[in-house]
Amino acid sequence: MAIKKVALTVGEVAEHIGARVIGDGRVQLVGMGTLQNSSVGQLSFLAQAKYLQYLASTGASAVLLKEQYASQFQGVSLVLDDPYLGYAKASHLFRRGRPERSGVIHPSALISADARLGADVYVAANVVVEAGAIIGDGVVLGANAFIGEESSIGANTVVNPNVVIYEGVCIGQRVIIHSGAVIGADGFGFAPDQGGWQKIAQLGGVKVGNDVEIGAGTTIDRGAIDDTVLEDGVILDNQVQIAHNVVVGKNSAIAGCSAIAGSSVIGECCTIAGGVGVVGHVTIVDHVHVTAMTLVTKSINRSGSYSSGSGLSESGLWRKNVARFKQLDSMAKRLKVLEKKVLDE
Amino acid sequence: MAIKKVALTVGEVAEHIGARVIGDGRVQLVGMGTLQNSSVGQLSFLAQAKYLQYLASTGASAVLLKEQYASQFQGVSLVLDDPYLGYAKASHLFRRGRPERSGVIHPSALISADARLGADVYVAANVVVEAGAIIGDGVVLGANAFIGEESSIGANTVVNPNVVIYEGVCIGQRVIIHSGAVIGADGFGFAPDQGGWQKIAQLGGVKVGNDVEIGAGTTIDRGAIDDTVLEDGVILDNQVQIAHNVVVGKNSAIAGCSAIAGSSVIGECCTIAGGVGVVGHVTIVDHVHVTAMTLVTKSINRSGSYSSGSGLSESGLWRKNVARFKQLDSMAKRLKVLEKKVLDE
Amino acid sequence: MAIKKVALTVGEVAEHIGARVIGDGRVQLVGMGTLQNSSVGQLSFLAQAKYLQYLASTGASAVLLKEQYASQFQGVSLVLDDPYLGYAKASHLFRRGRPERSGVIHPSALISADARLGADVYVAANVVVEAGAIIGDGVVLGANAFIGEESSIGANTVVNPNVVIYEGVCIGQRVIIHSGAVIGADGFGFAPDQGGWQKIAQLGGVKVGNDVEIGAGTTIDRGAIDDTVLEDGVILDNQVQIAHNVVVGKNSAIAGCSAIAGSSVIGECCTIAGGVGVVGHVTIVDHVHVTAMTLVTKSINRSGSYSSGSGLSESGLWRKNVARFKQLDSMAKRLKVLEKKVLDE
Repeated sequence: MAIKKVALTVGEVAEHIGARVIGDGRVQLVGMGTLQNSSVGQLSFLAQAKYLQYLASTGASAVLLKEQYASQFQGVSLVLDDPYLGYAKASHLFRRGRPERSGVIHPSALISADARLGADVYVAANVVVEAGAIIGDGVVLGANAFIGEESSIGANTVVNPNVVIYEGVCIGQRVIIHSGAVIGADGFGFAPDQGGWQKIAQLGGVKVGNDVEIGAGTTIDRGAIDDTVLEDGVILDNQVQIAHNVVVGKNSAIAGCSAIAGSSVIGECCTIAGGVGVVGHVTIVDHVHVTAMTLVTKSINRSGSYSSGSGLSESGLWRKNVARFKQLDSMAKRLKVLEKKVLDE
Repeated sequence: MAIKKVALTVGEVAEHIGARVIGDGRVQLVGMGTLQNSSVGQLSFLAQAKYLQYLASTGASAVLLKEQYASQFQGVSLVLDDPYLGYAKASHLFRRGRPERSGVIHPSALISADARLGADVYVAANVVVEAGAIIGDGVVLGANAFIGEESSIGANTVVNPNVVIYEGVCIGQRVIIHSGAVIGADGFGFAPDQGGWQKIAQLGGVKVGNDVEIGAGTTIDRGAIDDTVLEDGVILDNQVQIAHNVVVGKNSAIAGCSAIAGSSVIGECCTIAGGVGVVGHVTIVDHVHVTAMTLVTKSINRSGSYSSGSGLSESGLWRKNVARFKQLDSMAKRLKVLEKKVLDE
Repeated sequence: MAIKKVALTVGEVAEHIGARVIGDGRVQLVGMGTLQNSSVGQLSFLAQAKYLQYLASTGASAVLLKEQYASQFQGVSLVLDDPYLGYAKASHLFRRGRPERSGVIHPSALISADARLGADVYVAANVVVEAGAIIGDGVVLGANAFIGEESSIGANTVVNPNVVIYEGVCIGQRVIIHSGAVIGADGFGFAPDQGGWQKIAQLGGVKVGNDVEIGAGTTIDRGAIDDTVLEDGVILDNQVQIAHNVVVGKNSAIAGCSAIAGSSVIGECCTIAGGVGVVGHVTIVDHVHVTAMTLVTKSINRSGSYSSGSGLSESGLWRKNVARFKQLDSMAKRLKVLEKKVLDE
């Protein structure tokens, strides 16, 4: 995709992110690129030593890097301690221009007379805002988004097109919610009743803190009685499933397609990789890392890294090993018999 | 979330759910709470013995419980055999009030002149109903929902905002479909053709029985030739994937993020936990339980509980064991050699 | 579902798919069915030898089959080398009739004056097309679909209801995108920053080739700097997650609920079964098959079939074996000790 041209000088970028310039600060920048693929006018970054091999030959006009590498680059260096963080901050300067999204309410939007809108709100086409909803200052509601009764959206939050927020959901400030996300649908609560199921009304809500990001197609159910909670700074990737009464602690990150079952509590600053499952009613302490596609079957009481799975093999070998997996307990017992016989002799 | 106040007496609740009151039936109830978090005016329940410790000190004004525990509670007891089922039934009395959703068709809704609407239908903003669709009595169609040609929605079914129902889909009565669900998209059917793929038109439909619940973001594909079928009383959680020509038997429950591949048949009263995969063209008999993140690789012919996976470990130990998993077949053979040597001596 | 009647002769079908007729080519066909369930007027097919048992007794009026089986069928045979491919091609002739979807723009559609529409475009109710978007000839945009700024949709592509395409996304020709799919949402890119997360603006786009199919609820994120790419002929099932900067090679197929993490590259003609995870920054060569629910933890450099997982067991036995899995490394060491002792004697 051609990145929309933005004209900035190296000096302006350096000031924005707090970097020191080595070279000509008047050099113009119009976009960002990787070291391997950059061309003139682009800003790049060296965040890992393994990419050092591309530094000398990159076409980038300027590079974010640690001081120790500046001498190896011919162009303009922007020196700072954490080039990856510098890249993150600089990236926003080069975002493709969007039309002014403030103070416009599309005539096709259907906003209840009983809803309350803040200042400088942008409401796109076909948005529906129901009675009692509260929309904070500077909020962006994308096309076809739905905001249910008595839900509230904090200041400067961005709700992308086709997001659904059910009634009684409370969203914080500066939250980004991507398309297809559904917040506040009923938790999966049923009581067995004569061979069938009696639905349990889900009386709780959802409480999402500030500075949270919620990925495309992610679903967060309302609580059964108390609320489902995402604390401040939580980031959820696409197609994550958060069941009723889950609590995700501050600044925890959950990658794509992971699912947290009902009433489980994830601590602060946890990093849950993709495709992970956490069963219901368990607790995970702070600073836990869970590797991809692990099933967390019990509470984790000590910070650290946790895993499950069998590792990748060619299917032929894998089939043989799987057959043996089913004999593992018997193998272990046979091993013990042998040990007794051999080692006790 | 503050639960909208509803004023009911203990006696009214008891009558609704068939419980016997011990104490003052005129006590007012305004909401529900867990034993641990309830306050005055709330109804709670004791469904598992492990929560008995909270009974004496709960702030709840009334509690649903079995007769044997009534003496341990100071407040008003609602005695019944199955307190959890009682809670399920009572919960609906305390659901936050919704505006009257009956007999209103929003002026922005686009309903084909060739569609047929029953009595007391509620059609929200921006709903699209195409030609030949049949909408039963008392149906609720949420904002931005789409009902394709010649699809039918049975009486008193609730379709939440942004649900898509393709053409030729038949939905039963009293079904609840949550936002983001897609019913009747094409099954994943392709024939190999010169290194690429020839699409197979999906000529079947989807047939959903009565009293079914379909979670947010769940997808149910139309059949290739015959229909995909959910029988009466099936409950599906969020982000479940039901492929073409699957049949899910009566009253079976499937938890979040599980996927059933094409043409597989799930029996009645099965409980499939979250993140489970069922490969295509297999059959599972009635009353089977499958634990979380299991892959069902073959038909299950006997009721019972089934599992796969390696269990949770710290990543360091896990890596060592995974390395050994890849040697399992060779370990088994070496064990046999040893046994021959040692035990035959 | 009653398949809408289409009247065709066997001869017409044979001509369309390139089959040779044995019997009366004037026989009328009104639909398709499996060998087991067909009735008069239906066309069926024999694609696998295991269904040969149903050929003699099928109610179908005509059957697609290989020459060698023609003598075993009483009705009209349509003979060709690849009956499954013939079925795929013939199926489109029997697709339920849809209203003419060409040259109609619903008055409720909101199309920016700065967007460019090709000839014979169909735009359904409540569609939103933003400034700078380019919609090719013969494109179908379903109800409530959203096309962001400067995105382009190639000729004859079908976008189903409630699809969201963010800004700067480029979709090829003859692509089918099913409902609930989200293309171009932000990749999951964040830099650690003082215990929290600094969002990285996602400056890349998404590039989808020609003849691609994208399933319901599938999400494809935009790239961080360069684009995320699906090459020509890729087919994705429902609820697939494609992270930022992934490249999926020509004609590869990915089944439901699989997820490809950031920057990974899938070769051409790969077949990834359902529920598979591929970790980030790995490369898979052409012609690789990955079995269901496998986690690909490293690059695959040789074509072939790959797997992970433990196989299915009854839960009781499984629990015992899982306990042993956690002792596997120690078992392997104990086995070695024994071998040393026994075999060195």
